[in-house]
Amino acid sequence: MRLDVDPPLDPGAYAFSHRIRARFAETDAMGIVHHANHLLYLEEARVAYLRALERPYTELREEGVDHAVLGCSLRYRAPIRFDDLVDVHLVVATRTRATFTLAYLLRVGERACATAVTAHGAVDAGGRPVRLPRWLAEFPTASWALRS
Amino acid sequence: MRLDVDPPLDPGAYAFSHRIRARFAETDAMGIVHHANHLLYLEEARVAYLRALERPYTELREEGVDHAVLGCSLRYRAPIRFDDLVDVHLVVATRTRATFTLAYLLRVGERACATAVTAHGAVDAGGRPVRLPRWLAEFPTASWALRS
Amino acid sequence: MRLDVDPPLDPGAYAFSHRIRARFAETDAMGIVHHANHLLYLEEARVAYLRALERPYTELREEGVDHAVLGCSLRYRAPIRFDDLVDVHLVVATRTRATFTLAYLLRVGERACATAVTAHGAVDAGGRPVRLPRWLAEFPTASWALRS
Amino acid sequence: MRLDVDPPLDPGAYAFSHRIRARFAETDAMGIVHHANHLLYLEEARVAYLRALERPYTELREEGVDHAVLGCSLRYRAPIRFDDLVDVHLVVATRTRATFTLAYLLRVGERACATAVTAHGAVDAGGRPVRLPRWLAEFPTASWALRS
Repeated sequence: MRLDVDPPLDPGAYAFSHRIRARFAETDAMGIVHHANHLLYLEEARVAYLRALERPYTELREEGVDHAVLGCSLRYRAPIRFDDLVDVHLVVATRTRATFTLAYLLRVGERACATAVTAHGAVDAGGRPVRLPRWLAEFPTASWALRS
Repeated sequence: MRLDVDPPLDPGAYAFSHRIRARFAETDAMGIVHHANHLLYLEEARVAYLRALERPYTELREEGVDHAVLGCSLRYRAPIRFDDLVDVHLVVATRTRATFTLAYLLRVGERACATAVTAHGAVDAGGRPVRLPRWLAEFPTASWALRS
Repeated sequence: MRLDVDPPLDPGAYAFSHRIRARFAETDAMGIVHHANHLLYLEEARVAYLRALERPYTELREEGVDHAVLGCSLRYRAPIRFDDLVDVHLVVATRTRATFTLAYLLRVGERACATAVTAHGAVDAGGRPVRLPRWLAEFPTASWALRS
Repeated sequence: MRLDVDPPLDPGAYAFSHRIRARFAETDAMGIVHHANHLLYLEEARVAYLRALERPYTELREEGVDHAVLGCSLRYRAPIRFDDLVDVHLVVATRTRATFTLAYLLRVGERACATAVTAHGAVDAGGRPVRLPRWLAEFPTASWALRS
């Protein structure tokens, strides 16, 4: 599992993008979106990506394959505020037989608010690691990640 | 299901009390604990009460009986702030064969911050309503609730 | 503050509707959206309604008027599951000089999943109650609520 | 900011420990604590540590110094379940003039459930980076982190 890839700040480096509006409930007493809630945005964007790929997560779960989150890494660059429209850009960065990582860029307008990496492994209903489904094992990864 | 009982402001009217410290992540941009998070405090207090009664919720779940939340009602009287110690007082207010309600008072020091009622029903693993377990069906309710 | 209005199950009784997709993070170990998260849906729908009325909440906040949540009441009728598209219907139900209530119906497809009421009061930056802004004090309320 | 320190699995490598009971609301439809909620545990433990050091976070905030979270990195090793008692072990791992990192180990009983690193910077009320308070700038760091 490699969490040390450094997601680029250029949206053109990503394969997919999903827009989320920051909820008031997601802010904290510093007046900005609480740092834990960025993980909810990453997850919503992942689910939207699978849907766009016609591989909805609900179907994967029905087939008995779940995608456990093995790790994550986030860098907060600028605050996200209530009602901001957040564009979550994402791409498959790296993969092995049983795991893969996604890289993310969160932007509000032109401003980079955060970059992130999440690592995932396929697990069966009992939580045991299994091989990735074939389509995922063969999924193209970001060329910049290979170089990093 | 009766959500219209009016929980008293006197802690002496309650059977159990559980202390929770407000997390920073639970605050919002108004600088106070977000109103949705009070429900997390009620739930944590319910679970603590069951444990104190030696009827841990985890055991109930293993027996295949879950306690679905059927409804809730909250009145916010004063803000709860980050790091406040919140005393959640609670008592079984009313019950029928298949449902019961709990009444709550949330205080920080001597200040009443909220009152609440939650309604619950026993359900099986498939989510279908079932009779309350006997001990719960015979559980004493608050005398003030009978009068209300 | 009246939380005892009974929101109708007919979407035609509401003035506005807003669609939200249930996040995986919003589910709990019962496999359904946790009951506290319905409040996040109500809030997101309120904010969307204000935006549609060209009275964005962010502007109201900048003018120094905040809308404190004074109370809420929810009835859970059917579970909401991960990835469900939830239509939140809402309408101003009642109002006084300083407070107003909103009524809500949450549906997934044709299925009513929850009804709810939230009560709000205008407060200044210090949290003290103030009169509602004029446009809100004169805002039309649901005819069915007057009768209830 | 260095998020690449590798927190050890030996609780003896940490300076402080704080116990948290997993809430039902923190679980997800996989039946385990959702991966975003680990960040809430880290934050609660940080706040408890500051309190134990007699440097309560609320006082720091009143002095106009906030501790922005600059980044985080987590590895999930074993699931945390509802009602588990989680011991969050933590230590200051590294620091510079304006930033510091904390390392964490989360255990349920003897089982390591997660390791984590968070990076923090002192900021003023306007969100601008400032020097760390003196006591923090001179705070001892973990000897194992120097070697890593």
